[in-house]
Amino acid sequence: MGVPGLPEPVLIVGTGLLGTSIGLALREYGVEVYLSDTSPGAARLARDMGAGDLVSAAAPTPGLVVVATPPDVTAAAVIEALKFDGAFVTDVASVKGPIEAEVRRAAGPDASRYVGSHPMAGRERSGAAAADADLFRGRTWVICAHDGAAAEASDAMRALAGAVGGLPYEMPAGEHDSAVAAVSHLPQLMASLTAAQLDSLHGDALSLAGQGLRDTTRIAASDPMLWSAILAANAAAVLPHAEAALAQFEEIVAALRTAAGEGAHAVGVTGAFARLIEQGRTGVSRIPGKHGGAARRYAEVTVLVPDTPGQLGRLFGEVGEAGVNVEDFRMEHSAGANYGVATIFVVPSRELELADYLEAHGWRVMGA
Amino acid sequence: MGVPGLPEPVLIVGTGLLGTSIGLALREYGVEVYLSDTSPGAARLARDMGAGDLVSAAAPTPGLVVVATPPDVTAAAVIEALKFDGAFVTDVASVKGPIEAEVRRAAGPDASRYVGSHPMAGRERSGAAAADADLFRGRTWVICAHDGAAAEASDAMRALAGAVGGLPYEMPAGEHDSAVAAVSHLPQLMASLTAAQLDSLHGDALSLAGQGLRDTTRIAASDPMLWSAILAANAAAVLPHAEAALAQFEEIVAALRTAAGEGAHAVGVTGAFARLIEQGRTGVSRIPGKHGGAARRYAEVTVLVPDTPGQLGRLFGEVGEAGVNVEDFRMEHSAGANYGVATIFVVPSRELELADYLEAHGWRVMGA
Repeated sequence: MGVPGLPEPVLIVGTGLLGTSIGLALREYGVEVYLSDTSPGAARLARDMGAGDLVSAAAPTPGLVVVATPPDVTAAAVIEALKFDGAFVTDVASVKGPIEAEVRRAAGPDASRYVGSHPMAGRERSGAAAADADLFRGRTWVICAHDGAAAEASDAMRALAGAVGGLPYEMPAGEHDSAVAAVSHLPQLMASLTAAQLDSLHGDALSLAGQGLRDTTRIAASDPMLWSAILAANAAAVLPHAEAALAQFEEIVAALRTAAGEGAHAVGVTGAFARLIEQGRTGVSRIPGKHGGAARRYAEVTVLVPDTPGQLGRLFGEVGEAGVNVEDFRMEHSAGANYGVATIFVVPSRELELADYLEAHGWRVMGA
Repeated sequence: MGVPGLPEPVLIVGTGLLGTSIGLALREYGVEVYLSDTSPGAARLARDMGAGDLVSAAAPTPGLVVVATPPDVTAAAVIEALKFDGAFVTDVASVKGPIEAEVRRAAGPDASRYVGSHPMAGRERSGAAAADADLFRGRTWVICAHDGAAAEASDAMRALAGAVGGLPYEMPAGEHDSAVAAVSHLPQLMASLTAAQLDSLHGDALSLAGQGLRDTTRIAASDPMLWSAILAANAAAVLPHAEAALAQFEEIVAALRTAAGEGAHAVGVTGAFARLIEQGRTGVSRIPGKHGGAARRYAEVTVLVPDTPGQLGRLFGEVGEAGVNVEDFRMEHSAGANYGVATIFVVPSRELELADYLEAHGWRVMGA
């Protein structure tokens, strides 16, 4: 048993969702795992779930330490972990540059055994109770080696990522922080800003909410403690993206003021809106599609689904009988309706065939 | 045949997606429908699809005119339509106040026969070719009666909304415009602002994009022409919401600047972020859930689905066999992974039962 290239035993510091999930995944390969947490109750829960043994004075020196604490104490925990003679150390915090800088400053040459990680995985629930051995399966696992890191340290992190089913992706810490600032932290801020405007709204207004609003604000339901720590830690990387968005927003508000005062046909108004919407379209088209390939447009087959048990099962059963692979799927519900609108995304060459097949089997297919 | 309470014949002015879909839906009840469009080709396409007959000098005077033109010419088309003696007139533009004001100013007492509509339906595709008799089925259809409108005019619009399967919802035009400004137009702007920042990003950064970014920016793929017209027309109603969001955004950028300069622990930084995220959470929790009831939390059962044809069919088939109703469904894909993560939303009382059933049938259920 064990995982090739993975130093053992593994010590996990912090047994929340991520730490416990890593322990569970490694235990499936029989890796020797020890657990520690500032809360003894949290550590015991992780042990009882099968994530490893509680660490004790009698435990052997770890070969690899995974720091999975809250982000504001991560650097200190990494520095402490580097005191284990010869142990490689990583962390799983979602901001990498400030931790790397603090560790290199404080740990000197020992910092060569540190390489930071960022598994791109999470759940809406937190804590060991929500942990799962499959949490990282198929998810990107970013590895940030600094220029003073030992090659063996990076190798250990690739082995760790692979062992839990993640897809290793190497990237310097600064690039990583700038990337997540744009693709994760700014979108979180914008979703929260959008959702915050709903707080004071009249109830009748909210009854006009559609799927667009639900999609746009879904991530605004995130944890304020965690997110304020992330935004504070990555402020330097988020700032240029936020400033650019703010400057564009100011232009848009100026155009709204002109239109509100002088009318919709005032000079420059629709141009200002159209430029923004067009640039947004270009931005969206750059988001990679499924499997990380170039973004591609699937054809959509839209079907009315009665809201009774088994209807989605019947639908997907018949899609399967048609021999068509479902690339993606979306479900929409309307206020007061007794059925939903299901959108099935398929490769364009199968669209008409699937629509015909479903119509022939009694489904109401839109646009067919 | 015909629809009780619906004045006939119906004249549809503008045979794009909405106009043609209304015609198709009314023809299913045998309603007498005439079509007109400034583009004779567009009108013929709608006729060939079965949405009604082309209008001609020989056509009888309409009992009801539905104006479904682009928004910038809607008011003029409504005023023109009110010249048909005794005809009731509605329009389907997504901004109602400015049209209502212009119609009342220009048409005098004839404006009593006008009541505006806003069917909350659309598709990513446009034009008659994308039209569908089921487009409005189960969707809210807002009816905006002004204080000078005849009761018979409102009755006619309720009959129209019901005939096409929509759910009539009465609301004054000003309230409607303020509501859609907050639940639709501001979210569109924010999604476009978020997506616009991706335009100049390095390709590697985009490979870290996750489902959160995809959801947040999905509506940013919308049509610039249509949306710049909507934003210009509803500028007065969007402005206060946009100004409030802008003021909050300025505070956030100030906090980012402080954190970037003085460090993450500078006074007031995490508090500023936490307040926004918390207010966003409150806002999200106010969005009505399925069937327009109070927002409710469903339990989530998360399953790994191999990316081969028929797997989703097998999954939903077995969910159906378990006798559990799927309240909602979400599918996520990761870059480079050979399977997706499916989240099935069910009522909390059925969560464990479904998870156990699926595990027993060989599915990898997360958290089970």
